[in-house]
Amino acid sequence: MPNRPLDIDTLLRSPLFAAARHATTTSLLARGAMRVFARGSLLFEQNGEPTHLHVVAAGSVGLRAHDETGAGTIIDIFGPGQAFVVPSVMLGLPYPGSGVALTEAAMVLIPAPAFREAVATDPGLNRATVELLSRHWRLMVDQLVDLKLRPAEKRVARFLARRVPEEAEGGPAELPEPRTAIAARLGMTPETLSRALAALEARGLIRLSARRAHVLDRARLLV
Amino acid sequence: MPNRPLDIDTLLRSPLFAAARHATTTSLLARGAMRVFARGSLLFEQNGEPTHLHVVAAGSVGLRAHDETGAGTIIDIFGPGQAFVVPSVMLGLPYPGSGVALTEAAMVLIPAPAFREAVATDPGLNRATVELLSRHWRLMVDQLVDLKLRPAEKRVARFLARRVPEEAEGGPAELPEPRTAIAARLGMTPETLSRALAALEARGLIRLSARRAHVLDRARLLV
Repeated sequence: MPNRPLDIDTLLRSPLFAAARHATTTSLLARGAMRVFARGSLLFEQNGEPTHLHVVAAGSVGLRAHDETGAGTIIDIFGPGQAFVVPSVMLGLPYPGSGVALTEAAMVLIPAPAFREAVATDPGLNRATVELLSRHWRLMVDQLVDLKLRPAEKRVARFLARRVPEEAEGGPAELPEPRTAIAARLGMTPETLSRALAALEARGLIRLSARRAHVLDRARLLV
Repeated sequence: MPNRPLDIDTLLRSPLFAAARHATTTSLLARGAMRVFARGSLLFEQNGEPTHLHVVAAGSVGLRAHDETGAGTIIDIFGPGQAFVVPSVMLGLPYPGSGVALTEAAMVLIPAPAFREAVATDPGLNRATVELLSRHWRLMVDQLVDLKLRPAEKRVARFLARRVPEEAEGGPAELPEPRTAIAARLGMTPETLSRALAALEARGLIRLSARRAHVLDRARLLV
């Protein structure tokens, strides 16, 4: 896993650091490191102590949890500019899942104590952290509602719609992750995911290619 | 819905306010009000603006979400000392679900702007809020893992185990809420919940009565 030079623009793409004082960001950056992970490799292990905050510079990473029988699922997927796992870092409690690179992924690693110290002393970063934690909770609630109430096709439709900018009518929803990971994130088998994608294409809502679904009508995907 | 006198002990049972300055808590209390809600009544509506932080003084309340078809589920259940819905109050964004009294419930209502102001100015309350938001995210992750990986009987067993103090070998797990609400929280039908409870009793892990499951071996429920 080679290292790459670290530049401040990566951090500033994250809403977390955009809200921090410039001095805070440069100080965290000075203590941070950039690492590149190969597709499929492990960033950290479930139940491990959170030593670093991970900020995605490029690529896609997942939080993969397993239960006591060893069965696993993908809890969430994070893309460029997103920081994870903030709640574990803030609590200093073990990771609820393993971090896995779903594509080749470049990550900025910031030591957990330095991040906690910065949250305690920088009011802007503090507010942004509270907001990020609140939004993460919201997204988890959405996932629970999805799993409990919505059929597979609707879950897939909403997942694709969220990969297109909110203001756009449509556009490409990139799907660089393995289909098994996307299926696990959506709480279905890869076969069910394939059937749902085919059904959405048959209804004229998307056009499929290898690593992308071209969304033709974002609004109708959300109905 | 009659009002009850408000006393500071109610708030101080909440880890959130236990961490705040005494002056912060008394000031919030002065701006707060205590209200009693009848079983089944609505505290606030899904998609409504969060005007107040609700702290449970007594009873049990649920966050009930419905999807676009009107089908509903219980996202989470809150008991004495717990504050909700903190993420909505902090973001000032619409509630992701309705608040419903699952038993008769006494609530302390604190105006949302006053709470946000207190979080911004009281470092202890701020830390406690970050911790609470982080823990809530953790609990949502646990629920997702439950729903995606664990069979109904195991989900019920874990739910009961968490209603007994962590250090205890066993004891009563109170179930004052309607069985339909508990089933919805656990992502199953009331019939599946009944079968799972009966199966756990048959295995000698619990003893059932009307509004309680007496846990005989907490550790074995969690295996």
